[in-house]
Amino acid sequence: MSAQRPVFFVSDGTGITAETIGTSLLTQFPDVAFATQRLPFIDTESKARQAAQRVRETGERIGLRPIIVNTVVDSAISAALAESGALMMDVFAPFILPLETELGSMRRPSVGRAHSMTDYDKYETRINATNYALSHDDGVAPHYEEADVILVGVSRSGKTPTCLYLALHFGVSAANYPLTEEDLEGGELPRRLRLHRHKLFGLTIDPVRLHQIRQQRRPDSRYAKLETCQREVQAAEALFRQENLPSLSTTHTSIEEIASKVMSHFNIDRHLF
Amino acid sequence: MSAQRPVFFVSDGTGITAETIGTSLLTQFPDVAFATQRLPFIDTESKARQAAQRVRETGERIGLRPIIVNTVVDSAISAALAESGALMMDVFAPFILPLETELGSMRRPSVGRAHSMTDYDKYETRINATNYALSHDDGVAPHYEEADVILVGVSRSGKTPTCLYLALHFGVSAANYPLTEEDLEGGELPRRLRLHRHKLFGLTIDPVRLHQIRQQRRPDSRYAKLETCQREVQAAEALFRQENLPSLSTTHTSIEEIASKVMSHFNIDRHLF
Repeated sequence: MSAQRPVFFVSDGTGITAETIGTSLLTQFPDVAFATQRLPFIDTESKARQAAQRVRETGERIGLRPIIVNTVVDSAISAALAESGALMMDVFAPFILPLETELGSMRRPSVGRAHSMTDYDKYETRINATNYALSHDDGVAPHYEEADVILVGVSRSGKTPTCLYLALHFGVSAANYPLTEEDLEGGELPRRLRLHRHKLFGLTIDPVRLHQIRQQRRPDSRYAKLETCQREVQAAEALFRQENLPSLSTTHTSIEEIASKVMSHFNIDRHLF
Repeated sequence: MSAQRPVFFVSDGTGITAETIGTSLLTQFPDVAFATQRLPFIDTESKARQAAQRVRETGERIGLRPIIVNTVVDSAISAALAESGALMMDVFAPFILPLETELGSMRRPSVGRAHSMTDYDKYETRINATNYALSHDDGVAPHYEEADVILVGVSRSGKTPTCLYLALHFGVSAANYPLTEEDLEGGELPRRLRLHRHKLFGLTIDPVRLHQIRQQRRPDSRYAKLETCQREVQAAEALFRQENLPSLSTTHTSIEEIASKVMSHFNIDRHLF
């Protein structure tokens, strides 16, 4: 096994953007082994020099030139990072000049601002949406009139994490309604859901996968049985068809993708800008 | 007021990466008004041609050349998007050649792969961490031995959203313990927390800000009173000092930043790679 190429995600903020972009780039090279690390809050030249030294030493120890994926916009800090001898990939740098030219306006550099999210209104939108998701996670005592979206599906089909992601990432208020055996046997939507039909979105899942997930949670229960999963999923999908609800399968879909597709369907834009 | 410059975040996946990078770039130009929109799941040339037409028409209607921030790696799709006449900012393009040269390896293009997160193990890590955060959100019946981190603070200091973010984004299991009046009056950590002292991280907040937040939640209650907030925050901060706990103020800090600082402090790496 060959040595792992050291990669550093460096930022004057959390480094989450650098990590996201860097990881996407690295997945383009599935044959190469990488050892990645995040270096957040590098917002002074002195911190940058320390970081550069650490990067250089790592490269020397491993015997491979390190790679830096950098979202710092301050050029003095970037220059200090470049002293490490690493291959520098400055995420924002290639776009500043074309943007300045197109907009006829010079950028106004400000360390850390690119990542600042401290605006109170935005914070409150996220927190309110998160509280909404937390208090509307079980179908009990719902205030569905306040929901942007109501996710419907059998237990463990992915509703809760999707609702939380919608809230935290987009500030969208999402409720979720777990279809009960009674609902599924009755073969129709509960009345209080029908009143909000235009907000409903169905989640479904492959029964074998559901069985695996439920096995982990309650091993060898009736709830986790493959037959139970098959019956519930079949009834839920029949209900979605009959009621003409939009729906998608979460089996091969990440939480980000589910959230994004739900928002596209309802034409919701994020509430945080 | 001048027209808003149309900006499109285009991706073969969710478009979240394109949006994050694009938004960071646009904040460098605080004097320019932008109207942004996400165009996700553009993963065929035919969808790209439709998207390009929409971009072109928007530009013509508004009378300003649109901007596309693009994370599609497929060159045929990117070329179709460029037909829109927009200023193209291809996020990954500038880095592919330098990476290929450095790594001595050609990238293996795959539409959508850059955003794929459907790996089951990773999914389960996130979901398990999310379930952990949800079931350890109140200090009741805790399994602290399973926690990576335990956030401690007064009610509404930012613990819950941070725990959920740590779980959803990083797959980190975070519990939270709300300091009660009893804890604060007693002036020491509850015994069951003391057993896990090395996992504790304190969150604090400006009392005036806390008062505003609590006012929204329970207007004119004793809980929301400025004096209550001042007394609780003072006692909590005294406790952090006395017990020598790491802590930070959430007043001007985004959820991302809090999560990232907590992880840096404990040297936790994300559990999702």
